[in-house]
Amino acid sequence: MNENKSNPMWGGRFTSSPSEIMQKINSSISFDKRLAHQDIQASRAHCSMLVSCKIINSEDGTKILNGLDQIEGEIASGSFQFKTDLEDIHMNIENRLAQIIGAPAGKLHTARSRNDQVVTDFKLWVRDSIDQTSDSLLSLQKALVAQATVHTGTIMPGYTHLQAAQPITLGHHLMAYCEMFGRDRSRFADARRRMNECPLGVAALAGTTFPIDRNQTSEGLGFDRPTGNSLDTVSDRDFALDYLAAASISAIHLSRFAEEMILWCSPQFRFITLPDAFTTGSSIMPQKKNPDAAELIRAKTGRIIGDLTSLLVVMKGLPLAYSKDMQEDKEPVFDAHDSLNLGLCAMQGMISEMQVHSENMLQAARIGFPEATDLADWLVCQLNIPFRNAHAISAKIVQKAEDHGCDLKGLDLSVMKTVEPRIHEGILEILSIDSCVNRRKSHGGTAPESVRKQINQFNLANK
Amino acid sequence: MNENKSNPMWGGRFTSSPSEIMQKINSSISFDKRLAHQDIQASRAHCSMLVSCKIINSEDGTKILNGLDQIEGEIASGSFQFKTDLEDIHMNIENRLAQIIGAPAGKLHTARSRNDQVVTDFKLWVRDSIDQTSDSLLSLQKALVAQATVHTGTIMPGYTHLQAAQPITLGHHLMAYCEMFGRDRSRFADARRRMNECPLGVAALAGTTFPIDRNQTSEGLGFDRPTGNSLDTVSDRDFALDYLAAASISAIHLSRFAEEMILWCSPQFRFITLPDAFTTGSSIMPQKKNPDAAELIRAKTGRIIGDLTSLLVVMKGLPLAYSKDMQEDKEPVFDAHDSLNLGLCAMQGMISEMQVHSENMLQAARIGFPEATDLADWLVCQLNIPFRNAHAISAKIVQKAEDHGCDLKGLDLSVMKTVEPRIHEGILEILSIDSCVNRRKSHGGTAPESVRKQINQFNLANK
Amino acid sequence: MNENKSNPMWGGRFTSSPSEIMQKINSSISFDKRLAHQDIQASRAHCSMLVSCKIINSEDGTKILNGLDQIEGEIASGSFQFKTDLEDIHMNIENRLAQIIGAPAGKLHTARSRNDQVVTDFKLWVRDSIDQTSDSLLSLQKALVAQATVHTGTIMPGYTHLQAAQPITLGHHLMAYCEMFGRDRSRFADARRRMNECPLGVAALAGTTFPIDRNQTSEGLGFDRPTGNSLDTVSDRDFALDYLAAASISAIHLSRFAEEMILWCSPQFRFITLPDAFTTGSSIMPQKKNPDAAELIRAKTGRIIGDLTSLLVVMKGLPLAYSKDMQEDKEPVFDAHDSLNLGLCAMQGMISEMQVHSENMLQAARIGFPEATDLADWLVCQLNIPFRNAHAISAKIVQKAEDHGCDLKGLDLSVMKTVEPRIHEGILEILSIDSCVNRRKSHGGTAPESVRKQINQFNLANK
Amino acid sequence: MNENKSNPMWGGRFTSSPSEIMQKINSSISFDKRLAHQDIQASRAHCSMLVSCKIINSEDGTKILNGLDQIEGEIASGSFQFKTDLEDIHMNIENRLAQIIGAPAGKLHTARSRNDQVVTDFKLWVRDSIDQTSDSLLSLQKALVAQATVHTGTIMPGYTHLQAAQPITLGHHLMAYCEMFGRDRSRFADARRRMNECPLGVAALAGTTFPIDRNQTSEGLGFDRPTGNSLDTVSDRDFALDYLAAASISAIHLSRFAEEMILWCSPQFRFITLPDAFTTGSSIMPQKKNPDAAELIRAKTGRIIGDLTSLLVVMKGLPLAYSKDMQEDKEPVFDAHDSLNLGLCAMQGMISEMQVHSENMLQAARIGFPEATDLADWLVCQLNIPFRNAHAISAKIVQKAEDHGCDLKGLDLSVMKTVEPRIHEGILEILSIDSCVNRRKSHGGTAPESVRKQINQFNLANK
Repeated sequence: MNENKSNPMWGGRFTSSPSEIMQKINSSISFDKRLAHQDIQASRAHCSMLVSCKIINSEDGTKILNGLDQIEGEIASGSFQFKTDLEDIHMNIENRLAQIIGAPAGKLHTARSRNDQVVTDFKLWVRDSIDQTSDSLLSLQKALVAQATVHTGTIMPGYTHLQAAQPITLGHHLMAYCEMFGRDRSRFADARRRMNECPLGVAALAGTTFPIDRNQTSEGLGFDRPTGNSLDTVSDRDFALDYLAAASISAIHLSRFAEEMILWCSPQFRFITLPDAFTTGSSIMPQKKNPDAAELIRAKTGRIIGDLTSLLVVMKGLPLAYSKDMQEDKEPVFDAHDSLNLGLCAMQGMISEMQVHSENMLQAARIGFPEATDLADWLVCQLNIPFRNAHAISAKIVQKAEDHGCDLKGLDLSVMKTVEPRIHEGILEILSIDSCVNRRKSHGGTAPESVRKQINQFNLANK
Repeated sequence: MNENKSNPMWGGRFTSSPSEIMQKINSSISFDKRLAHQDIQASRAHCSMLVSCKIINSEDGTKILNGLDQIEGEIASGSFQFKTDLEDIHMNIENRLAQIIGAPAGKLHTARSRNDQVVTDFKLWVRDSIDQTSDSLLSLQKALVAQATVHTGTIMPGYTHLQAAQPITLGHHLMAYCEMFGRDRSRFADARRRMNECPLGVAALAGTTFPIDRNQTSEGLGFDRPTGNSLDTVSDRDFALDYLAAASISAIHLSRFAEEMILWCSPQFRFITLPDAFTTGSSIMPQKKNPDAAELIRAKTGRIIGDLTSLLVVMKGLPLAYSKDMQEDKEPVFDAHDSLNLGLCAMQGMISEMQVHSENMLQAARIGFPEATDLADWLVCQLNIPFRNAHAISAKIVQKAEDHGCDLKGLDLSVMKTVEPRIHEGILEILSIDSCVNRRKSHGGTAPESVRKQINQFNLANK
Repeated sequence: MNENKSNPMWGGRFTSSPSEIMQKINSSISFDKRLAHQDIQASRAHCSMLVSCKIINSEDGTKILNGLDQIEGEIASGSFQFKTDLEDIHMNIENRLAQIIGAPAGKLHTARSRNDQVVTDFKLWVRDSIDQTSDSLLSLQKALVAQATVHTGTIMPGYTHLQAAQPITLGHHLMAYCEMFGRDRSRFADARRRMNECPLGVAALAGTTFPIDRNQTSEGLGFDRPTGNSLDTVSDRDFALDYLAAASISAIHLSRFAEEMILWCSPQFRFITLPDAFTTGSSIMPQKKNPDAAELIRAKTGRIIGDLTSLLVVMKGLPLAYSKDMQEDKEPVFDAHDSLNLGLCAMQGMISEMQVHSENMLQAARIGFPEATDLADWLVCQLNIPFRNAHAISAKIVQKAEDHGCDLKGLDLSVMKTVEPRIHEGILEILSIDSCVNRRKSHGGTAPESVRKQINQFNLANK
Repeated sequence: MNENKSNPMWGGRFTSSPSEIMQKINSSISFDKRLAHQDIQASRAHCSMLVSCKIINSEDGTKILNGLDQIEGEIASGSFQFKTDLEDIHMNIENRLAQIIGAPAGKLHTARSRNDQVVTDFKLWVRDSIDQTSDSLLSLQKALVAQATVHTGTIMPGYTHLQAAQPITLGHHLMAYCEMFGRDRSRFADARRRMNECPLGVAALAGTTFPIDRNQTSEGLGFDRPTGNSLDTVSDRDFALDYLAAASISAIHLSRFAEEMILWCSPQFRFITLPDAFTTGSSIMPQKKNPDAAELIRAKTGRIIGDLTSLLVVMKGLPLAYSKDMQEDKEPVFDAHDSLNLGLCAMQGMISEMQVHSENMLQAARIGFPEATDLADWLVCQLNIPFRNAHAISAKIVQKAEDHGCDLKGLDLSVMKTVEPRIHEGILEILSIDSCVNRRKSHGGTAPESVRKQINQFNLANK
């Protein structure tokens, strides 16, 4: 079968030797090479500390640092040869270092172990990812705020149960997402703060007999302090779980906006047109623009939640300290990082460039007696009727309007009076969709005035 | 079939009318009655604010508050009648209020909606649960620290891959879990801080036209500030997801210790005996004590992760604002709360009362040349041999010891010298298991000295 | 705090004794009482076999069977007292049996163990649930087919990417779900067949020394054969996982239709009106009908997937044979059963009674040049133009129509000829939405003729 | 930062154009090239059918088939150029076909669409994977049976709650896993049968106007019949969910055996030594063999469950018919395939080559009065004592033995008689561990005689 040739998995069972199978299952270089930069960064800090603490001499230290520089250059230029038989990124780099500087390379691993090395590298990577993801989130918020600023007065239907409930402004709707992505930033910031303790120097699991200075490596790598318990340090993957939980919740927010975009650009809504760059057309139906990017953003929630599930399952019930199971920690995090950041970028692009059809939104907002709640509120305020009764009166008046085939404003005052005789002309002021929106200026409300406050507050906090 | 009688589900399809099916799927009172206290608490704050803002008069306000007091009393005493046909806790309470105080009850719902009411109640409940869970975590930490204090010098094998790697102290092992549960407390604290914004007053989704003071209700209910966007407020369940993610990670920690306890009390380990209260015996084999509680703690990780998954799936792709899907938010949180707190209590009991068999731990720690790493470290420090070479020399000496059928200390110095001639008597000092442990006094290390520091730091921070 | 009184969890940590905590975590009677009928059923079969094999005498056997009858009656009538301190349903029943018949009750447990008893009871329950769920699925299919039969000719837009792609018939759309629920039935049937091996008689884990006849109990309980390996039998929960996987996939199908119903009854679509029984109205906006049941069906997918996740996590990495972790197997299955069957009933009700607005569907189907693909197909068939080229020509003609502001049929033949001169009057036949639908009569296609075949095939197979 | 150079994701947000982001999120060629063989296979069948039905002429058909042969050769030899800008495997192949044969290539896509093409290719791939996975499972079963055959008489402790319960044979234990993997094969077989309906020819969603013969393509591709509803066909990913559910359950089985292997080769158990090929050593502790492969097998359960979760989430709530979300179906299946098959191969290797330490197993089996249950059974059979009473008597005798510090056989008959006077010498026959094992010959029991029957039955069914 041809497949055997193009795909190394097919038929592998029959031909692979045990050692080949072991290499396939055991080797991590195919994915952990993404830690190359962090591995070098951590080795530099470790080397400098060893020199400071006189555990290795400064001459050897300099050779090691120069060798690491050279390796970093080779990786950047693409000339570095990653070798599967060296299993992981750590041995790939240490092995190359030995080729370059010889014997002193053997001193770099003093007072550390693969167990603390790998968790240090991975923490640095996750921290870098948090920083990038936070930037992506902030950029997305700014794109939302920019559109919200344009659309503080754009009226659209506010839905509950996907049924029109009360008119709102598009600016208000966009600022709702600004809140969500703000919480996401705060969640990633919390995760960063909690994880920001340096693992380096706990060695295999029990600490080391060398007179090392863990504070120095911690500071050198930008951590707040060294971790407090060596056994916990090599067994802990909470930081990756925190990351994946934050990514999952952020993905949920993206999926909700993606869902709305898909609805809004459907022929039944036509609230927006998505930018060409993020849709695919049909060569045959010119009006058709498939919202592929939005659909893929919605779908990628699945894989990010899957990534979270996968690491939760891996960690469940593992005895201390390091077990090889924990090598399965990286791929879900890498995958979540890629998926989430791609989704954030694409969403930012779509929001910035979407075309809003205000007239369609307004027309949809007019359907279904949107002023009914305001009518009830008016009865409470002006006629001092308890809310539950006012609500019932309003319902009867709406029913009259429906019977007359008109909207509330179009209903004759005399008809309203048959329901509640004390109703007077003052009511006409509030029976308009503009009034509905403009009068909801309570803190956080949908009125342009209120939305502008929300925008100002964001701008103040993020300038 | 008899089942039809005892179980309302069986055969329901054939006999249930549509309205019965709707009531079964739609009614939430069977579970949301757990929000009764929070619903009354929020209504009190809302009522007081309405009076302050002169939206209702103080006479009506007093009647409402008195009515709520009476209802609270009825619920506490068990005399309150929860009714399924009133659907949820909110209508059950409002309906009872109307029975007690009559017409003024209809004014309580002014300037609020079921949408902001339910999210306020639920947030208050989750916040209460966080406070209780944090207390449970702290109690568990204290139980760990109490045992760790007793066992700073109790030597046991430190495992990686469930293979003995280096000797550690039991105190050190217990303090590793103290770190984990400390991170859990920090995670719950972050969740609490992020969620601590008051939803009350955002009404259905768009804010309200009444001149309410959201700051007053926010303060009255102990929130830091009102939420910033009304549409987001009624659509947001991040606080429940944060809670479930924190609970899942904490459950992972519990499951790891539970796994270890199950191992440690197996006949092959015999490191500990669990207290009778948390085991079941066999009536027939007196030595058998089944670690049921530990197994159930390990298993409950599954349902807590399931709870998290379930709410992530519910929220995925929901358009704004409130959808009825979100009624499925409470049961997973209630279930996770119950399961986690039960697990924390049971774990605390087991740790406080477990019987430690130090002699078995020590004996297990002696197996397998535990001093091999120290030998290598000694070669590095005393003979200035690069670590990687020292490592190789140590391995050869261990091989000699194995060939001679003795431990490292028992190996004649002359034999060691055949491997590395510069080895001298000084090496004997470090070739003991006590030395292995005592010399690992680097920050966070396993030495009793280091563990005592960890304990002191905990005690200082939590006195 | 009042909560302490109404809710046993709050504050439990401070007041509960270890034995109370253990009872809370260990006792299963609160949920496994749902196995009462199955437990009695299995005990009857076991007792009869013991008599047949002369392990107990027939006099004792008769007493036991009579006692079980009495207990069954007590449970049916609600007079049976379930006791938490007897832990589970098995001990509750055995204990009651001893009260009723005295000493012979002690003989019932000969040659069986709690381990095989519980798995037998649970298998019987799952099998009953599969039978009921399969019936629910078939009823739902019949409701779909009944509506499809009415609507073989009702034209609506067929969507891809929620963009109108080609016109289809509502009957065709409904029959798509009939296929899905048919696969669900086949999946449950497979699960039933695979699980239908009798566990009874494997005892604790190793089999028994009594000369039992496992074939007799197997037959008596309707199993196909006894299980093949006793150790596997008490360790196996595959049947529960199979059930939960089948339930999850079925829930996905329900969620897809629920999503469509929510869209279809939104003010932007107005394709259907859902029956009053399955919606909630707004007292104030008469036109508003919130599709609560559909939203809850969509949401319950979350808890069913959560149930599946939870049991997968529980089972992961458990050593053989029985561990107490496996007590966590029942609640997810019970919850999935209740949620799925409720969803199936509610969906059946909504489908049977929904009101279809054919005119709105047809109008939506006309939007966007639905005949464009047929035009291309015509060019291939009539003018022998390769499909990819025909596609391009069709796109150009559509563009012309859009420029002229007309639909394809309205475009003058001469304009079409400017794109492709060989086009002739024959093309007009296919340029109608009816033609689009009627000509798609390939196997499984949307043409009424084809849909009627699908309906006939279902009716033939399920009469 | 160097990362920007080596990793296209870092910093991508700032520099990527919208179209680059779209390409990254939208293009699938990086993973769907694994469908190359299946795409060609399906195109061949489609082309032959078009010729048979006279929709294209045989000359064009021959050109297309020859072109496809050439492309298949290019892919096999590695000379085929996969291009990202052609998005997916289908366009890559069609585009190449046009380069090779020119205009007739445009006819291949007649009467099919990307929607039916992709689901056909993917179904073919999943079916191939099921066939391979079933072979892997059978090979693993054979390895288990081979070891079980050697070890029908090797006695080891049978555990419940990881406490020794009753002695069993290793052969019996291995055959328990043979049952599990047998159920896995049956589950994959069910999935294969259910999915084995041919999608090709349903076109975009509604069927086609061309006079195609779907039965011909179905037969040509080895399907049982064409799918029954075109709308369902392009919307359905049940077959992938079935696959992932089956893979998850199989992974659970692997994880359970992996857990046991990790325990069994720990220094506290020493029941087995794993083959060198599947462990990693410590260069410094010669006795240490880390069971890396077993740990990774246990861990990979996490990613397979994550894969299942991910696709369940993707599919939840998707309206019909095709949505782009469904492009996220392939990677979880590919990942599960790779992980599961690698795990099955590695497990087979470990089982075939593991070294069993029978003496350690036997010694462990002797601990804890393993004959206690048999003693009770003897009292029932020989002295006609009800089981519950016999159980209590046996417990008292065990207590005596423990007080005397001897095992049951070592306890003087006179001491036993103080508990139950009727006990006589006959009891001595059953008080041995061999007797415990040999007498459990009930169907499925642990006795060598019974295990040999289980082995024979497997061999008969799978020769």
